[in-house]
Amino acid sequence: MIDAPYILFLGDAVDPLAAKVAQGIRDWRPDYAKAQFRLPGCNADMGLPDMTMEEAAAAGIKTVVIGVANRGGHISEAWITALEAALVAGMDIASGLHNLLSDEGALVAAAQMHGRTLHDVRIPTVAYPIANGKKRSGKRVLAVGTDCSVGKMYTAIALEREMQARGLNATFRATGQTGILITGGGIPLDAVVADFMAGAVEYLTPENDPDHWDIIEGQGSLFHASYSGVTMALIHGGQPDALILAHEPTRSHMRGLPEYALPSLEDLRDMALRLAQVVNPACKVIGVSVNTAKMPEDEASAYLQALETRLGLPCVDPYRHGAARLVDALA
Amino acid sequence: MIDAPYILFLGDAVDPLAAKVAQGIRDWRPDYAKAQFRLPGCNADMGLPDMTMEEAAAAGIKTVVIGVANRGGHISEAWITALEAALVAGMDIASGLHNLLSDEGALVAAAQMHGRTLHDVRIPTVAYPIANGKKRSGKRVLAVGTDCSVGKMYTAIALEREMQARGLNATFRATGQTGILITGGGIPLDAVVADFMAGAVEYLTPENDPDHWDIIEGQGSLFHASYSGVTMALIHGGQPDALILAHEPTRSHMRGLPEYALPSLEDLRDMALRLAQVVNPACKVIGVSVNTAKMPEDEASAYLQALETRLGLPCVDPYRHGAARLVDALA
Repeated sequence: MIDAPYILFLGDAVDPLAAKVAQGIRDWRPDYAKAQFRLPGCNADMGLPDMTMEEAAAAGIKTVVIGVANRGGHISEAWITALEAALVAGMDIASGLHNLLSDEGALVAAAQMHGRTLHDVRIPTVAYPIANGKKRSGKRVLAVGTDCSVGKMYTAIALEREMQARGLNATFRATGQTGILITGGGIPLDAVVADFMAGAVEYLTPENDPDHWDIIEGQGSLFHASYSGVTMALIHGGQPDALILAHEPTRSHMRGLPEYALPSLEDLRDMALRLAQVVNPACKVIGVSVNTAKMPEDEASAYLQALETRLGLPCVDPYRHGAARLVDALA
Repeated sequence: MIDAPYILFLGDAVDPLAAKVAQGIRDWRPDYAKAQFRLPGCNADMGLPDMTMEEAAAAGIKTVVIGVANRGGHISEAWITALEAALVAGMDIASGLHNLLSDEGALVAAAQMHGRTLHDVRIPTVAYPIANGKKRSGKRVLAVGTDCSVGKMYTAIALEREMQARGLNATFRATGQTGILITGGGIPLDAVVADFMAGAVEYLTPENDPDHWDIIEGQGSLFHASYSGVTMALIHGGQPDALILAHEPTRSHMRGLPEYALPSLEDLRDMALRLAQVVNPACKVIGVSVNTAKMPEDEASAYLQALETRLGLPCVDPYRHGAARLVDALA
């Protein structure tokens, strides 16, 4: 396992959203997140002490966690230099990037020389089966978004927190690198080979007690041209009993696709429900999770109230107001 | 790309069905299929001249294509001996088997010594990009099925044949092993990592002349729990201008999923069109391709006529009756 505490590597993050892995750890494992490391041009800030690698190691930090997507899909020279320094200083490195730490000769050599470990959490370590679609016991809830990065993982973790606080039988099931880095387990779904995606989700959420809820971390969006296939596999592999719609109301276009407008929540509801009913005819949409982080409190409340009237479903920001009403709706 | 022409390796095929890859090449690329190679005990026959590897090379044949499934899931000594002789004689080898040519030391050594290439078409050889969803020039048509294995590839190749016969500017784009071996190129979509599926389809069907049609080979089904994510990536990566619905009317349940009934063609039409319009609002469903192989001619004709009245679209079996009416509908 990955040794805590962490220094969150923000690199040259183009914007705060690019550092959402770091933000997730910061928000959900604040006891792990002790410091941050930023390169020139970094536009993200976790509000943690900035440290050099040497300072972090001296402060007792054990692991550098890559908290940011790499620009251009390759690990740059500037990153390598900083990460090598971390290994020299005596820390491990954990990463969920597609580009593997273990493919970087300089890092592999430095890790060997200094007796450190490179954790690539994005590599599937299991030969997942092809999905069989068989009805299984236990219940499952999945958040589906109008877009990527609208708060599906937050919704799931907030649900788990609330359900466990009520003594309910529930487990968060991570499907992305942030979730895996937060919980220490799960499947790196976007790195699974196409034929086995839905099977990997079945593997992650096996038969369980009739009253047990698997809270499956959503990915992508049915309306996002780049990642919709992954979302589809989550719906058909996850066999959800309940869907939660996830939305970020200030988004002007689909993430990374400036030509694409977001779908309406009604369009998402109808599409996701129809697809989920292929594998579970009893599936229901039970609520809406809205990420209101960019709205002042009064605006957020008014938005949620209007949305609730419009859709006839509980509409909440689980991070701001808690997930209690969503858990009520699940029951 | 795989160099043509081919000698079709039928090995020790237990029956004609075991050689269905060879049959596909024979049916759809007769100009590529110049000869066949059979071992003792072979029960398949493509009606091509039997040649030794030396004769094939002397006749100008460039590549041995494995046209048969391997018995018992391993590449036998008898196969290795024959394939080594092919490399010595100066030909390449192409295979879509699960067992990779590149895992056979003797073949790898012989290929290196003689400067030949081993094509394992099941392995992606390109670092595909993440899809960008950008509008691109040229036109694209995609067949989507009520189920897997209902004739989507045959529909696509029949379309290409008819369009090229009319002097139209059209290219079949293979997305599966058989299609790749038939055409000599394409992407093994079901072996691509989840995040890059739609990007691989964009890569396969780049910008083109305004009057050019890419005819994209379909995979899976939106209603098939195991593979729907792959279908979704084809729709969103393919950015189709036209969809053709594909159906096999005698199928009693979804292939490999005995608990799942097939959707209606109306359900498929509505679902596929709505999803395609996310990336191309002008997309239209232009016809239905029905695999009537298991029906006598009069029953097939009656079924197609009734379906045409029901759906208000051209409904044809392109393998039985040609793709002319589908091509008319594309125009």
